[in-house]
Amino acid sequence: VTESLESLRATLGKVSDLRSAIAVLSWDQEVNMPPKGAEGRGQQLATLSAYAHRIFTDPGVGVLLQELSGAIETLSPDDAKLVGVTLYDYDRATRLPESFVSELAMECSKAYEVWVRARKESNFSLFRDSLAQIVDLNRRKAAYIGYKDSPYDALLDEYERGMTAAQLTPLFSDLAKAQSALVERIVASPTQPDVAWTAGPWDERAKWDFTVKVLRDLGFDMDAGRQDKSIHPFSTQFDLYDVRVTTRFSPDELFSGLMGTIHECGHALYSQGHDPADRRTPLMDGASLGIHESQSRMWENMIGRSLPFWEHYLPVLRDSFPDRLRGVAPEDAYAAVNCVERSLIRVEADECTYNLHVILRFEIETGLIEGSLSVDDVPDVWNAKIKEYLGLDVPNDAQGCLQDIHWSHGAFGYFPTYTLGNLYAAQLFETIQDAIPDLWDRVRRGEFATLLTWLRENIHRYGRRKLPVEILKDATGQDPDWRPYLRYLENKYGGLYGLSS
Amino acid sequence: VTESLESLRATLGKVSDLRSAIAVLSWDQEVNMPPKGAEGRGQQLATLSAYAHRIFTDPGVGVLLQELSGAIETLSPDDAKLVGVTLYDYDRATRLPESFVSELAMECSKAYEVWVRARKESNFSLFRDSLAQIVDLNRRKAAYIGYKDSPYDALLDEYERGMTAAQLTPLFSDLAKAQSALVERIVASPTQPDVAWTAGPWDERAKWDFTVKVLRDLGFDMDAGRQDKSIHPFSTQFDLYDVRVTTRFSPDELFSGLMGTIHECGHALYSQGHDPADRRTPLMDGASLGIHESQSRMWENMIGRSLPFWEHYLPVLRDSFPDRLRGVAPEDAYAAVNCVERSLIRVEADECTYNLHVILRFEIETGLIEGSLSVDDVPDVWNAKIKEYLGLDVPNDAQGCLQDIHWSHGAFGYFPTYTLGNLYAAQLFETIQDAIPDLWDRVRRGEFATLLTWLRENIHRYGRRKLPVEILKDATGQDPDWRPYLRYLENKYGGLYGLSS
Repeated sequence: VTESLESLRATLGKVSDLRSAIAVLSWDQEVNMPPKGAEGRGQQLATLSAYAHRIFTDPGVGVLLQELSGAIETLSPDDAKLVGVTLYDYDRATRLPESFVSELAMECSKAYEVWVRARKESNFSLFRDSLAQIVDLNRRKAAYIGYKDSPYDALLDEYERGMTAAQLTPLFSDLAKAQSALVERIVASPTQPDVAWTAGPWDERAKWDFTVKVLRDLGFDMDAGRQDKSIHPFSTQFDLYDVRVTTRFSPDELFSGLMGTIHECGHALYSQGHDPADRRTPLMDGASLGIHESQSRMWENMIGRSLPFWEHYLPVLRDSFPDRLRGVAPEDAYAAVNCVERSLIRVEADECTYNLHVILRFEIETGLIEGSLSVDDVPDVWNAKIKEYLGLDVPNDAQGCLQDIHWSHGAFGYFPTYTLGNLYAAQLFETIQDAIPDLWDRVRRGEFATLLTWLRENIHRYGRRKLPVEILKDATGQDPDWRPYLRYLENKYGGLYGLSS
Repeated sequence: VTESLESLRATLGKVSDLRSAIAVLSWDQEVNMPPKGAEGRGQQLATLSAYAHRIFTDPGVGVLLQELSGAIETLSPDDAKLVGVTLYDYDRATRLPESFVSELAMECSKAYEVWVRARKESNFSLFRDSLAQIVDLNRRKAAYIGYKDSPYDALLDEYERGMTAAQLTPLFSDLAKAQSALVERIVASPTQPDVAWTAGPWDERAKWDFTVKVLRDLGFDMDAGRQDKSIHPFSTQFDLYDVRVTTRFSPDELFSGLMGTIHECGHALYSQGHDPADRRTPLMDGASLGIHESQSRMWENMIGRSLPFWEHYLPVLRDSFPDRLRGVAPEDAYAAVNCVERSLIRVEADECTYNLHVILRFEIETGLIEGSLSVDDVPDVWNAKIKEYLGLDVPNDAQGCLQDIHWSHGAFGYFPTYTLGNLYAAQLFETIQDAIPDLWDRVRRGEFATLLTWLRENIHRYGRRKLPVEILKDATGQDPDWRPYLRYLENKYGGLYGLSS
């Protein structure tokens, strides 16, 4: 057994190295790569992915896992976790025939090209057949993987292990109703924040330096990571001690670069907080996309968009822009970073409206995968739901059902993790405020170590040792619930927008 | 045969992708990686290298090469070249038993650590045993690979295919005598350049922008590459269309960053000039390190340190530093960038003294590998040769025989390629000046396209299709020769230092 375990660890280490290399090449592609490098990079990534897959799915690995699973009681709890998680990954990876994996990759690559053109021409009918094919392939994928109730569960499991459509449907439906009603009250309120003073241009160098200061203050280890710029902010991990975040700046905006930094920093703090014992194993990753997103959203929204945060940081920012920020108070910054607007585009949505964008996508994609919704009906259903949840009319497909890349990439089951992240964040944050009664005094002093320590202790260090719901339950005593998030919104925006409760 | 060729190309493509990934990870390590990332990166690189080696040396590749070599007349000239070069690489890679490769890697890794400490303490005796072991391993390596006259030839071949110690020995010995005598006249001359005006500090941003302008002007395709900063300037290639260069700046120096850029740009222009048909094959690389260095040295020294170059660029640089460069003429810049100084350190040496540093290393390492010199005698021989060639006394081992990393890395046979690069550059440049009679007028206008076209046509596009000496002979009609380089130095420095001829 010891020998098998060592042999398994050796193979997993190599797979981890290959995946780290893939992550480095992907990071470079977004951050540095010159335009003409794309074709060569695509081939390099394809080759590395194929080897990583082949080495991990080698039948020899299956034999080792079989043997170790049979002797699971003789293993240490840590080793047992490793074997369990690896077996789960191995099962998922080997249930798809190689021919199917290539077919899916090929169709997604084609569908992506088609989607780019369809979005450019704002014409869903161009994308219709590709989407139908992708949906069909995902239904086949679900069949290969297996499921109990809904084929959607097999897809969702890839991003949020253990979660099901049956759990999400009522949760999201209740949330949509309550959140939509709150948004209606907010936009109708006579009290609205002043954002005129935030109009640019703002010097990028000063904004960059400010993001770096905040990164360090929040606890990001700059000796074990770095920040760069990219078109779409993201975070990635090559090793426990090499975690990268990116951000972007627009000359017109004072806060968006910082908010991008804090969001990615939330992901990165999770990555930097895993257990060193788990390096080069499948345990060293987030428990799920939802838990990962709970970390980024908590730091971005609950901390970075709080009044105590701006009580501490507005004076710091004023040092860089003394003239323009002379008459600006922390309350002004707090109001401006929490401005609520109903919009058509998900990635531009604020924390009051974001979930509504996600929930309509969840409802459409479960319909498609379960067969209750036809591909032809996607634009109409999309537009009706935007009207229902946000009160807006969708003028064209580009600003409607063609706006997101996910489906063209073949990713179904990914969207709900964004909203789960918000819900988990609110549930965790209620617990945290109980556990750290002077949290806001600390934030007001720019002291985040106590919060980070709590997150390390209760979430980060476990990596994939616990399922997402276990992490939540162990930390808060609760199952996934939408009410804490709504309480958080009502409390915060009730004050900001002068709503009567 | 067609099928075998396709199968060979598929494998070579994958090996090339893995090597590109290694290059990306190595580039990132020098340019971006946070300090704590080193250990993880080391493991990733080791894993990728092991796979690249294993896939390339697979017996199946040997069978394909055997078969294709047998049918070489039926292949197109291009395919025949591919099979020939691949067979050469395959032979070299498979002649070393895997156990020997690991032993060598392990000893080099240990020797490197020891060398770092020995250099820090400036004590050769600490490094003595490690060096003895590395020498012994290299002699065994030579025996595995095989050779006709000298075991050194087997090692040299890795960097300069076809070159031998027997060819280099008289070439270098004549060169050392003549160059050493020239240096003596230069340093004794009453005419010496004024470099006082180049003293810093100089703004880095302005210097950076200037290097980028020069990069573009010389013909570097910024859509197929980029420049960054690193501690040691280098260039690397991930794909024909993704070539990276780095440079570095010191606040005190006006020219060193630019010279680093031009040097690496010379390498990069070579890399960007390979035949697109050779992508993802072993043909897409420089013919040898010597030919590669001929490109970097030609652009750096013959172009970048010429008077016409500074007639064009001094006014450009003056735009960035109008006050400080008001009274400075192109001739002043020309004199300052060609200042000759005898020094103990190779990497700080100018083009008049550089070869002398290289030749003494060549003489020592051939002695060690051929067994005519004992490891114990290295410091004494080193110091005696520095006295003989440069007239200097070596005060300690750190500034003497411990200054270079190469031997501790296990690299024997690498040093001479630096000097071969200088010699090839001078030989090629005499031919180029005949072929482009108005070359200097063009340089004076900042027009480098004609020169680049000549290099593309006669050198770059061949990649590894020709041996280094074939490239030289086809382009110049000559074998390697030291006299053109000496003519170049005498002509240039005779003028600068007012030497009578």
